[in-house]
Amino acid sequence: MTFRCPDRPGIVYAVSGALLQMQANIIEKSQFSEPISGTFCLRTRFETDEADSTHIKVVLEAELAQFGGTLTVRNEEVKQRVLIMVSKFEHCLIDLLYRHSEGELPVDIPLVVSNHWDCQELVARYGIPYVHLPVTKETKRQQEQRLVELVDEHHVDFVVLARYMQVLSAELCAAISGRAINIHHSFLPGFKGAKPYHQAYDRGVKLIGATAHYVTSDLDEGPIIEQDVQRVTHAQNAEQLVVMGKDVERQVLSRAVKWQAEDRVLLVGNRTVVFQ
Amino acid sequence: MTFRCPDRPGIVYAVSGALLQMQANIIEKSQFSEPISGTFCLRTRFETDEADSTHIKVVLEAELAQFGGTLTVRNEEVKQRVLIMVSKFEHCLIDLLYRHSEGELPVDIPLVVSNHWDCQELVARYGIPYVHLPVTKETKRQQEQRLVELVDEHHVDFVVLARYMQVLSAELCAAISGRAINIHHSFLPGFKGAKPYHQAYDRGVKLIGATAHYVTSDLDEGPIIEQDVQRVTHAQNAEQLVVMGKDVERQVLSRAVKWQAEDRVLLVGNRTVVFQ
Amino acid sequence: MTFRCPDRPGIVYAVSGALLQMQANIIEKSQFSEPISGTFCLRTRFETDEADSTHIKVVLEAELAQFGGTLTVRNEEVKQRVLIMVSKFEHCLIDLLYRHSEGELPVDIPLVVSNHWDCQELVARYGIPYVHLPVTKETKRQQEQRLVELVDEHHVDFVVLARYMQVLSAELCAAISGRAINIHHSFLPGFKGAKPYHQAYDRGVKLIGATAHYVTSDLDEGPIIEQDVQRVTHAQNAEQLVVMGKDVERQVLSRAVKWQAEDRVLLVGNRTVVFQ
Amino acid sequence: MTFRCPDRPGIVYAVSGALLQMQANIIEKSQFSEPISGTFCLRTRFETDEADSTHIKVVLEAELAQFGGTLTVRNEEVKQRVLIMVSKFEHCLIDLLYRHSEGELPVDIPLVVSNHWDCQELVARYGIPYVHLPVTKETKRQQEQRLVELVDEHHVDFVVLARYMQVLSAELCAAISGRAINIHHSFLPGFKGAKPYHQAYDRGVKLIGATAHYVTSDLDEGPIIEQDVQRVTHAQNAEQLVVMGKDVERQVLSRAVKWQAEDRVLLVGNRTVVFQ
Repeated sequence: MTFRCPDRPGIVYAVSGALLQMQANIIEKSQFSEPISGTFCLRTRFETDEADSTHIKVVLEAELAQFGGTLTVRNEEVKQRVLIMVSKFEHCLIDLLYRHSEGELPVDIPLVVSNHWDCQELVARYGIPYVHLPVTKETKRQQEQRLVELVDEHHVDFVVLARYMQVLSAELCAAISGRAINIHHSFLPGFKGAKPYHQAYDRGVKLIGATAHYVTSDLDEGPIIEQDVQRVTHAQNAEQLVVMGKDVERQVLSRAVKWQAEDRVLLVGNRTVVFQ
Repeated sequence: MTFRCPDRPGIVYAVSGALLQMQANIIEKSQFSEPISGTFCLRTRFETDEADSTHIKVVLEAELAQFGGTLTVRNEEVKQRVLIMVSKFEHCLIDLLYRHSEGELPVDIPLVVSNHWDCQELVARYGIPYVHLPVTKETKRQQEQRLVELVDEHHVDFVVLARYMQVLSAELCAAISGRAINIHHSFLPGFKGAKPYHQAYDRGVKLIGATAHYVTSDLDEGPIIEQDVQRVTHAQNAEQLVVMGKDVERQVLSRAVKWQAEDRVLLVGNRTVVFQ
Repeated sequence: MTFRCPDRPGIVYAVSGALLQMQANIIEKSQFSEPISGTFCLRTRFETDEADSTHIKVVLEAELAQFGGTLTVRNEEVKQRVLIMVSKFEHCLIDLLYRHSEGELPVDIPLVVSNHWDCQELVARYGIPYVHLPVTKETKRQQEQRLVELVDEHHVDFVVLARYMQVLSAELCAAISGRAINIHHSFLPGFKGAKPYHQAYDRGVKLIGATAHYVTSDLDEGPIIEQDVQRVTHAQNAEQLVVMGKDVERQVLSRAVKWQAEDRVLLVGNRTVVFQ
Repeated sequence: MTFRCPDRPGIVYAVSGALLQMQANIIEKSQFSEPISGTFCLRTRFETDEADSTHIKVVLEAELAQFGGTLTVRNEEVKQRVLIMVSKFEHCLIDLLYRHSEGELPVDIPLVVSNHWDCQELVARYGIPYVHLPVTKETKRQQEQRLVELVDEHHVDFVVLARYMQVLSAELCAAISGRAINIHHSFLPGFKGAKPYHQAYDRGVKLIGATAHYVTSDLDEGPIIEQDVQRVTHAQNAEQLVVMGKDVERQVLSRAVKWQAEDRVLLVGNRTVVFQ
């Protein structure tokens, strides 16, 4: 369960009381009071004999109604459903598929969508349906509509842009707001936009990075979920930075997807609270 | 406050109830259930109008008595008192003194003890008393007795061995058990004992490290509080590793001291729980 | 080209003279004088119109004969041939195969050998022959002989043990000495032998690691090529360390294989010189 | 010695020939051909019986004149002279002074200049003259003139801005171009200008950083010498980032100063070649 509400005394007491009432055993518990907005954030994993997660939610809602917040309750065994979008670069996709096949990523992947055919064979190896949705300036609106339909049809919980190289329209961004994770191949806010490794080379930075963030209509400005960097020297040219950066990109994206899949990421304003 | 007890349902409920009763506002809260020993560990920072921390402890003890654990309550404004021991190397000491003078380390340092005179001037600059306790094979027992007396006289909460190059006797280790932090200049358990950087050079490792741990009578085997590493190459010789390692040592030790000063480190068996 | 010889003045002058004579253009050049053994090590990449690498070698040998060292010359377009060995864990193998398919690893992989069937399908996807060589106490000698035959038949330059879980006999170690890279799932010299993550958990370390090293008959004592670490906390149990460690293992092994493939690793005594 | 010139065959041969002629023993040698500008960069440490470094320079110049480049020759025992500038924050200054006193920084520090009195006592402890040069909008021109005079009077090789919080005029920047190192408290190009930690907090980044760069008239746009980062979480507020960032700042600046002091940094266009 996760819970977000305006901070005030008594919340923890109420939550732990409700859990005790259900004879729940707390496995993990993290909380944080965001000082600027005064938002209390909580995530708890617990186990209970109560099989019906709807009933659990009803009990918790009753106890927590007084705090006027947002409650989510999820049975861990029901995995979140993820739609992965990709263009031509497959390094992030292969990492997600590999970790998924190893049981490291607790999600279901009902389909992979691409505007190209390049990754079809890779996806087929893992037995996952591949939907080809080409896009041109003229067909962008229809393509995005089809995408939203696919999200609905497949009961997708969140979308992962694994180096999907199309800018999404403001409408699509709004439709999947808070439910879409993008990987940008720079350490944001440095090097927004196109060809960030070439920008990084030109600027002569000594570390390159990658940033996983929620998609918003403001390009490369969405709330950051995870970032990491890698040391480089004068001896690498822009093309070598592109190759070296792939490792950082896939690790950063995979971590962000895993945390999202485990409900560890709570959005507060334009910043994320990540419970680890 | 910190609390450790055998894990069972209801602990969080009881703690949050007691705090609510005192109209305390929780600032930080971390908990962890150590699975092997079944130990529940909790650390909470809270603020309350109740000025008397003894009264707070009485209230909490009453509520938590049923769980049979260990409770500590400390008023943050009353800083822990630290005795620093040093021999000839001053890099860890200078880092502690500097951070202390900057307000980064929330401790009081009533005195620095050394078996040499080398660091006297440095310590004098910071206006801290310097006690010279030389040691030989013959005088070791007396020297250690004097040290224990100093710990008592100055109401020292914990001792920091900032590259103190003497092996402590089993008796002294027992006397300050859980209250003494040492920095070892290797990434333990690799390279125990003397000249670890020379051992590291001979073995040809690609990273060197440092380890802050609680002192036990089993040399370099105490519970680890913090570790970190630094990349090296074939091009550094053992003496250069010694110099490069100083940076890691002082950062690792300073972090460990800060966490101990903030009651973030709980000892469970031979492992530490570090709440960050 | 790489060159190793006892250090004395004039080597660089002789090498650069020979290259100038062939109108070679130096692309990369690294050198290091190992102080303990007094060994001069050099690696140079150069391009020249001279197509015949045998002729190049003859010229260089003539110039360098006076220094009495070891010279290697390789045409970059003729990739080194790598035999990968694996047991059941596939995370290192998949990383090598992926990077190979992406063109990040400049090697040819004529075959993968395993004592189990588990990775057969994965290897088949990449169109690489899979040789199943099961092993029991009784058949170990024959199995290892067959392996040496495969190394010869396929003109293998070096062998990669990508989590191959069998201890090699002293005879096999000798046969492939300096030509076999193993990944050990700990930060050596800590946690040699079996179940290193469980050892790491028991010791309570705050960082876990992995080590790529040359295989020697002295288990986990071979010259280290590359190491890296990852931060962990009290909250991860041994099984979670196993999962988290996979990422470090595969990165460390892939880097070591890449460097070996590019002739960047020179062995000097029990230590490696790695030119980056 | 360092040497920079347009790249063409024969440079290494000429340099090694000249050194051989002086019976010099090469201790370190690094070279790099910057591909965009076609600049060959070289740095060599060597020892020779020839005591007169002017004579050495004459010999080298004669041999290298044909390549039309820039040559520097320096006797390592004659340390470079550094003027440190500081305002109120002393964490970078104390790190430089400490490392200098430990012999880790091979420079002479004839004076520290500040627009405030705050660091006077600290500097006095190390026995270094402290020059107070206050500055207002009206006196800026004179203050900067006085600074340039001090640079000349004290034969200063380079200037270090150790959190000097004044923007330098374009004239001053030009006067000390390539000879002044600044530390900016963000991972450039992110968060230029004022209060970068507060900007970082607002953006919700997961790593904070620091950047040492050459001063140019284009604020925070100078060639980068070194950068590093540190992980942060949602739980740190802007003030805590300020404190945590101090560690990165001082390490990054100290490394940059050390490399500059050892002639390891060569400027090529707007990027640096750093030989390690």
